[in-house]
Amino acid sequence: MQSKSESEIGKRKISGHQNQELEPNPGCGPGRLTIVSLGPGDPQYLAPRARTALERAEVIVGYKTYMDLIEPELLVKKETISTGMMKEITRCQMAIDRACQGKNTAVVSSGDAGIYGMAGLVLELLAEQNLMDHVKVEVIPGISSLSAAAALLGAPLMHDFAVISLSDLMTPWEDIRSRLEAAARADFVLVIYNPRSNKRDWQLEKAREIVLKFRKDDTPVGMIKNAMREGQAVKITTLSKLDVTDADMLSILVMGNSKTRILGKKMVTPRGYIEKRAAVTNVATNPKG
Amino acid sequence: MQSKSESEIGKRKISGHQNQELEPNPGCGPGRLTIVSLGPGDPQYLAPRARTALERAEVIVGYKTYMDLIEPELLVKKETISTGMMKEITRCQMAIDRACQGKNTAVVSSGDAGIYGMAGLVLELLAEQNLMDHVKVEVIPGISSLSAAAALLGAPLMHDFAVISLSDLMTPWEDIRSRLEAAARADFVLVIYNPRSNKRDWQLEKAREIVLKFRKDDTPVGMIKNAMREGQAVKITTLSKLDVTDADMLSILVMGNSKTRILGKKMVTPRGYIEKRAAVTNVATNPKG
Repeated sequence: MQSKSESEIGKRKISGHQNQELEPNPGCGPGRLTIVSLGPGDPQYLAPRARTALERAEVIVGYKTYMDLIEPELLVKKETISTGMMKEITRCQMAIDRACQGKNTAVVSSGDAGIYGMAGLVLELLAEQNLMDHVKVEVIPGISSLSAAAALLGAPLMHDFAVISLSDLMTPWEDIRSRLEAAARADFVLVIYNPRSNKRDWQLEKAREIVLKFRKDDTPVGMIKNAMREGQAVKITTLSKLDVTDADMLSILVMGNSKTRILGKKMVTPRGYIEKRAAVTNVATNPKG
Repeated sequence: MQSKSESEIGKRKISGHQNQELEPNPGCGPGRLTIVSLGPGDPQYLAPRARTALERAEVIVGYKTYMDLIEPELLVKKETISTGMMKEITRCQMAIDRACQGKNTAVVSSGDAGIYGMAGLVLELLAEQNLMDHVKVEVIPGISSLSAAAALLGAPLMHDFAVISLSDLMTPWEDIRSRLEAAARADFVLVIYNPRSNKRDWQLEKAREIVLKFRKDDTPVGMIKNAMREGQAVKITTLSKLDVTDADMLSILVMGNSKTRILGKKMVTPRGYIEKRAAVTNVATNPKG
């Protein structure tokens, strides 16, 4: 591993096939696997490169809810493989198998596939099966849920922020708790993924309690459901007034830092330009101040 | 402010003009101001909605380097206003003035305008001048630099991460230092913006030292310059081998957490699917284990 730790990767094209002598998986042909970020879901926010990748794909693989975000015309005459939740490994493995059969295969994720998405699992499975140099892989980034949520709220992410998933299915709650506390203490804006589901109904209330140890009751909180797609809901409230039962698996929350304010109907974390101007003006008017 | 703290904001359309009786700024017409995220710069990653906003704009305002990312055909027959760095307030004010004159005005930011971008300053200036209900504002999100960087590196952001700017122009170094330490201690993946410039040449080395207090020498670090545009460079190295002088103002760094690995030529932070499968398999084989 160490020998590969300082590797320069070429421009734009991901290299493949250099190590065909490895014969990693007999019968595995020269496949192409593209991990495609769908963005929020509305075609208005689908990057042209992602659209092209979907157009060119022979096989499209994804979680059912994400497949439904794809325009039907992009799925015509294609093999589509969709499975429910908790079938992530099966789904990614099927995509790898198709790519190995020589099919141009796309794995789709909503938002950005690189943020809590499928990009990592695909790469892990490829590495485990010694296929990294055999399958051409490209990750196409997209507009993440956090970017979509921030845009709808105003501008809450103008300063340092921490992104935390409250799902303790694969992460011990103690790790999540300590991250919430560290981020709240150091005055990061917090972006919360997976705040609540039917089975995980206490984590968000706990998170609010942790953050309230370090922030005022009236710290702005934004909650977004289905950003930029059917059923969109945008709410701006405060830490103390937040109704945690409002959140679900598809919600994203943004908890402001000590400087975040509500301006009109928008949530804004100042970057400091105006404060700096005020300071400069102040020095100019009161040269001794 | 409190009375507005729990406000439900309508679907997709930003409301405007409800408060025309306020007469906030005599002579200010019904303007439209769109804050447009350009994404990494390559038109392949420009969202259709952002493109449409640029096509419809009569005035386009932006930092010169960002204006150069826009396809020339989108600028034809338009008023364009570009200024250098450190003129952020002037630039945003000019955009507001044009919108108030009734012009359809776009302010552009590279990456996502909602992450360390211009969205916040525009909203702050509008609020300061009591224009929030008078100018129609929309923030169009884009593919952020962090998403573009992550996609080129592989999948380093599959788990919780903290985003920190090392620029101490408007933030005291002590705040930045304490955020670096908190994020490193709590095992967040770190995304570093503004790592180094000619004038700010010591912060990245200091950041590395702080992170090394909590992480191993061989923790993977990815450095990206000009993600998905002219001059792109992608490097994967480790915390101890990182050459900080390689970084510049346009670089983004991703420092792995304790679980981040280099797989082939990719940097991956496992989400936990494979570990969980292994645990399940283990329990199944050794029911008493």
